Amino acid sequence: MAKDIMLYWGSDSPPCWRVMIALEEKQLHGYNNKLLSFDKQEHKCAEVMKLNPRGQLPTMKHGDTIVNESFAACMYLESKFKSQGTRLIPDDPTEQALVYQRMFETNTLQQKFYEVAYYGWLVPEEERHESALNRNKENFIAELKLWNGYLEKMGKGSYLAGKNFTMADVVCFPIIGFLQRLGCPKDKCPRLMEYFEMVKDRPSIKASWPPKSEGEYTLKDL
Amino acid sequence: MAKDIMLYWGSDSPPCWRVMIALEEKQLHGYNNKLLSFDKQEHKCAEVMKLNPRGQLPTMKHGDTIVNESFAACMYLESKFKSQGTRLIPDDPTEQALVYQRMFETNTLQQKFYEVAYYGWLVPEEERHESALNRNKENFIAELKLWNGYLEKMGKGSYLAGKNFTMADVVCFPIIGFLQRLGCPKDKCPRLMEYFEMVKDRPSIKASWPPKSEGEYTLKDL
Repeated sequence: MAKDIMLYWGSDSPPCWRVMIALEEKQLHGYNNKLLSFDKQEHKCAEVMKLNPRGQLPTMKHGDTIVNESFAACMYLESKFKSQGTRLIPDDPTEQALVYQRMFETNTLQQKFYEVAYYGWLVPEEERHESALNRNKENFIAELKLWNGYLEKMGKGSYLAGKNFTMADVVCFPIIGFLQRLGCPKDKCPRLMEYFEMVKDRPSIKASWPPKSEGEYTLKDL
Repeated sequence: MAKDIMLYWGSDSPPCWRVMIALEEKQLHGYNNKLLSFDKQEHKCAEVMKLNPRGQLPTMKHGDTIVNESFAACMYLESKFKSQGTRLIPDDPTEQALVYQRMFETNTLQQKFYEVAYYGWLVPEEERHESALNRNKENFIAELKLWNGYLEKMGKGSYLAGKNFTMADVVCFPIIGFLQRLGCPKDKCPRLMEYFEMVKDRPSIKASWPPKSEGEYTLKDL
């Protein structure tokens, strides 16, 4: 089945990485893929635009089915290959509640991460304000504290939604991976960094580890 | 079962409205609820903070299960009450693909809507730039064009992900409802306005129609 899948992806993109983790968890090793450069605007190429009018990555095609939004692609893969590889969404709705909660809260973590790490890329120079960047940093630090608290409460060795690796980890790990890559100070997120150490050698994550792009982004001065 | 549910919500909030539509679609009429005022900062009250450390609305509790993020709450309700009321997620993964795609793309539509309609609320006065607001408007208009195109392609009388009302409609309709409420010019989104007219009298939507808050937001000059 992996041979029916084509993924267009870019490096330094948490959304792309999460789809790649999902593909590995569902045992779809060896899927077709093409690494494109955001810096060279390759995500706007005709090949992508034909499948994804937004010209964004990830762009995924499985047979005749096109799914581009990263959460949608992950949910689709889990459903289509439900009995293959890791079960990423538990059967019990009560257990699902926390998985969904952490999954979709990841959008907030991602947004606050972007607003700091990619501030200079998102905001034209003449519209930048130190006050805005400082506020973004404060909001991001508060967000990290929240997630640290979640892991603290779950206890040592826990995944984001309990004792099993779930879709919450698939979608959120890439952000935590980038915290580490961009040198986020450990004291801002000690539990997240413990979690990172626990999860980083998982086969799906090692197999999908994205190369560093040309961008010079850092969280060292958070 | 509706009596085991408590929803804290605020007006002028697409995320709150989508959970209320889901509750009605799943035949959970008469759930307990409390309308709180964002302007009076009631969403930061102890009662909410105890359930939701973010102090945000919606905040939902069903028995002992707490789900606050609006997409998570909708997915939980669909799963927990799968055979009750409207089936919002189809069984077939291939059909799910488009439902998920439109569902999660709604986050982008919502973000771009916020960045125009709530610009003055989101950005402190001294950090506002006409160039930024104009760019936000352009991006929002491009986004509306995309969704218009989706509906155009699906054909007259179609819902957002096909011939049935699905979770894509549950999560996206509130944004389209606010386009209409805030006076978005029809020529910017003619198909979305046709869709609005088609869906607005659906019982779940009529029953959950939120009152207008004190805020003075408009899209008339889009």
